[in-house]
Amino acid sequence: MRRVSIAPIKDRLQRLAVLVQSLGHKKAAPEVREELKDDRAEDLADNIARMDTEDAVALLQAMDVIQAGNVMVELPTETAREIVDELPDDVVASYLDVLPMDDAIDLREEVGEERFEALLEIIPDEDAAEIRRLLAYPEDSVGRLITEHFFSVTPEMTVKDILKDLRQAGDEKYETVNDIYVLNEYGYLVGVTSLRRVLRVPQSTQVKEIMRTDPVSVTATLDEESAARMMARYGFYALPVLDEEGRMVGLFTGDDAQTILREAETEDVLAVSAVSGDAEPYYSLSPWDLYKRRFPWLAALFVAETLTGAVMRHYAGANNELQINPLMFFIPLVIGAGGNSGAQVTTTITRALALDEVKTGDVFAVMGKEVLVALMVGTSLGLLGFGRAFFGWGTGMELSLVVGFALPAIVIWATTIGSVLPLAAKRFGVDPAVMSAPFITTFVDATGLIIYFQIALMLMHK
Amino acid sequence: MRRVSIAPIKDRLQRLAVLVQSLGHKKAAPEVREELKDDRAEDLADNIARMDTEDAVALLQAMDVIQAGNVMVELPTETAREIVDELPDDVVASYLDVLPMDDAIDLREEVGEERFEALLEIIPDEDAAEIRRLLAYPEDSVGRLITEHFFSVTPEMTVKDILKDLRQAGDEKYETVNDIYVLNEYGYLVGVTSLRRVLRVPQSTQVKEIMRTDPVSVTATLDEESAARMMARYGFYALPVLDEEGRMVGLFTGDDAQTILREAETEDVLAVSAVSGDAEPYYSLSPWDLYKRRFPWLAALFVAETLTGAVMRHYAGANNELQINPLMFFIPLVIGAGGNSGAQVTTTITRALALDEVKTGDVFAVMGKEVLVALMVGTSLGLLGFGRAFFGWGTGMELSLVVGFALPAIVIWATTIGSVLPLAAKRFGVDPAVMSAPFITTFVDATGLIIYFQIALMLMHK
Repeated sequence: MRRVSIAPIKDRLQRLAVLVQSLGHKKAAPEVREELKDDRAEDLADNIARMDTEDAVALLQAMDVIQAGNVMVELPTETAREIVDELPDDVVASYLDVLPMDDAIDLREEVGEERFEALLEIIPDEDAAEIRRLLAYPEDSVGRLITEHFFSVTPEMTVKDILKDLRQAGDEKYETVNDIYVLNEYGYLVGVTSLRRVLRVPQSTQVKEIMRTDPVSVTATLDEESAARMMARYGFYALPVLDEEGRMVGLFTGDDAQTILREAETEDVLAVSAVSGDAEPYYSLSPWDLYKRRFPWLAALFVAETLTGAVMRHYAGANNELQINPLMFFIPLVIGAGGNSGAQVTTTITRALALDEVKTGDVFAVMGKEVLVALMVGTSLGLLGFGRAFFGWGTGMELSLVVGFALPAIVIWATTIGSVLPLAAKRFGVDPAVMSAPFITTFVDATGLIIYFQIALMLMHK
Repeated sequence: MRRVSIAPIKDRLQRLAVLVQSLGHKKAAPEVREELKDDRAEDLADNIARMDTEDAVALLQAMDVIQAGNVMVELPTETAREIVDELPDDVVASYLDVLPMDDAIDLREEVGEERFEALLEIIPDEDAAEIRRLLAYPEDSVGRLITEHFFSVTPEMTVKDILKDLRQAGDEKYETVNDIYVLNEYGYLVGVTSLRRVLRVPQSTQVKEIMRTDPVSVTATLDEESAARMMARYGFYALPVLDEEGRMVGLFTGDDAQTILREAETEDVLAVSAVSGDAEPYYSLSPWDLYKRRFPWLAALFVAETLTGAVMRHYAGANNELQINPLMFFIPLVIGAGGNSGAQVTTTITRALALDEVKTGDVFAVMGKEVLVALMVGTSLGLLGFGRAFFGWGTGMELSLVVGFALPAIVIWATTIGSVLPLAAKRFGVDPAVMSAPFITTFVDATGLIIYFQIALMLMHK
């Protein structure tokens, strides 16, 4: 069994990076290629993403260009962007040249639109034209993810013709040949058959005798997630993609569908706890990235939560018939902010654990990063809270300060709990999902209140 | 383009069900088979799941047995269980007989262990033995999902031998033949090659010349989710499964992996908002099912949330120096319960919308079901809250009643908001995920407080 352990490959890559740095990538290339020839792009990308940009750039230039191109596609967006910035034009152009077109388009985001356009001038015209055709489809539509290199036949062709065509096609020509698409003379999709079916019938059989006539297909303008869900629903490994008229323009393959679904699911999971942003591996996100993904939602929720204080003020009445201590008005605000930020962290970490982007051994690295983010988020919320209390509601300076200090303290506390608990759960063999957002929130409600009251006692009494 | 609309197929099925009821399933069979021959099991299952059990049972018996078996596998667990209960032994046995073994095992849950054992006596010994072999693997391990019918060759075989073997194999023998597994004389997996590769080399080529020698594989005892994630990671369509010694025992195919991942994602999404249970389509869950999935977590969170009240009591001190009105002690408890139940509902509905299990037109059906569940959940929590206040903390009868009445009122309110907002968002073209759990929670905090204070004013003053 092939083990998916990253320790050995990591050491090998580090050694090769040193080698490339000292010999130059031209001289080191043969050894690098030999050493990595059996490694898969996904495994290499995992490790290269954690290296210094300088090492990664050196290594990629010494690697086989097809392998390097595939690694680029698998890298997290941010990491790929940093690396691409350091790579010369001809190297990036060579990636665009060897990659399947839909993967080449994927690199556009990292390369930047302007440079991408310039690179299209360098690569062969035919490839550039194909890339431009795919780019004409709307963003996030399945049209951008198709390959135009699918295997198609006409209804009148015989099995013998098909086998001859297949033998003559170069090894890299088609991404997949398991399904064989039957197009009429105008390019309309009229049927589908499979290679295994073809192999079982006499050589003189015509395709139309063994094709299924109602293939499931999608239109190129359909959004990618719907197309991927349809493929998953029927358990297919590829879907033919048609233009508005019904002519087949390309093939949407299962590996792309899986990537789309995985990212969509991650975004859905994170959205439940109000974390926005694209699905990027946890380790590739800087504290500043995390801040940008979390703070806007926390701020919006914070503003919405001030409604709760307003409700309490209203019911307290002009004469405070309900005897509500002003300290109470801020409780939902303060514990709400703690609960929400804890929920964001715990959901992010739980998801990263599920996708193996974080290991239980990373606990200190994760905590360090999270506490830094919490400081940033907490300080921002503290300023917001102080401002709301002091300037907005005309609360006294003392109580406003309590709110301003309690917010960062509680956010840091909630973040620590929210990052440690899922990791600890996993460590002790418990499903981290059990330490879900509501539990963190509830736990932070009670403990956050202690922090709030303690700060109040320190600042307001004596 | 084939449209995935359920209107026409629904009407056809209803008509056929009536036909079967009047003619009997033997006489109606030819028409049913002809009419449904081009329909896919997934589409049929979607519609049959929404029919009366009686109609569904009639229809299934008149259908082609392979198609009917595949429909059974696609049906939601609860629906399948009801239908299986009404089907005679020989019909269920015929499903086990025609289905791939891993799908047959899937039916075990619905059939019940005892009856399943009895059915194994009816089907051919060979099939029964294979099912028993798979069942020997641990629950949730990938071993239970494998097919033993994979295409394998020896390293010394030539391309000519392979093509001959393939031609001789029956059409249903192998689930997939795209990858060809190379086993040595002892059954150890030594390499893998692909059918397309085989078709491109001369007929006299030996497999060992064109095989890749480090196939990615998994052990049969690995849990199914990890195996599915590994397949997705590498973009494969099948993974060879080995025993502890490295002998290949079966093949784990992409369609099963997709199902596993989709269900795991749903469970992860729901877990973020503390809803437990297997991934079942929303429409197949009764209010009582929903209650069972939600109440235990709400009750646990409720008990945990009482800590918050304890903290307030502590800081209020023996002489209530902080001037905390006893009404305050229950605020986190009451609005927490509202927020949590709202979050559960909104997450469930948002997920069902993403998976197309609920349409925006279903808004009244969804609300009806949810309000019923909310009544059950709210009443349970109300009793719990009253008990905790009156007996646990010795709170006065008046205030205890306020808590007891406020809880169901707020839960019903939160549920209504939590079910309507995602549907409304989708209706108006906004991503329902934006109406995420934290927003519902925050909104319910403020509005729930109004309900609480109003009930307090009614019951406690004047």
